Amino acid sequence: MAKQQNRKKNPILMKFAKTVRTRRYELGLTQEELAEASDLHVNYIGGIERATRNPSLLILVKLSNALQVELGSLLKE
Amino acid sequence: MAKQQNRKKNPILMKFAKTVRTRRYELGLTQEELAEASDLHVNYIGGIERATRNPSLLILVKLSNALQVELGSLLKE
Repeated sequence: MAKQQNRKKNPILMKFAKTVRTRRYELGLTQEELAEASDLHVNYIGGIERATRNPSLLILVKLSNALQVELGSLLKE
Repeated sequence: MAKQQNRKKNPILMKFAKTVRTRRYELGLTQEELAEASDLHVNYIGGIERATRNPSLLILVKLSNALQVELGSLLKE
C-alpha cells in the first residue's frame, strides 16, 4: 500500500483515472454506487481514480459496462 | 499453468485473443517478433493468443503500440 502511494504515477493510469472519474460524475454516481454497479470493491474504485491500480481487461469491461460507455471510448487517447 | 489450461476460457479474452492474432498476421509478424516489439515475453504473447491471460491496461497499451492500432480499436466489440 505504502509502496503504491509512493510510486510515481504512470501517465496512462492517470489519464484513465481522470476519464473514469469524469464519467462517474457525469452519471452522478458516488464511488460506492460505481463499485456496486461494476461489482468491484469501493477501495478498488478509489485506487483506479488515484491511478494506483492497473486494471485488467476483464475489470475494464466491468467498468465500461457500469459507466455505460464502450470500452474503446473509455480508453481513447 | 495446468489450472489455466483447464479453465473454461472467458469469451472476452477469446475475442481479444482473436483480434490480436488477426492483427499480428496482418502485420506479418511471428509471436517472437510481436514479443520483441511490445517488450513482452513470447510466452506471454502465446498466453494472450490462447485466451489464458487477462492483460492489464499497461500491457494493452504496449500491445496496441506494437500492433500499430489505437487501443480503442483493439478492444472494439
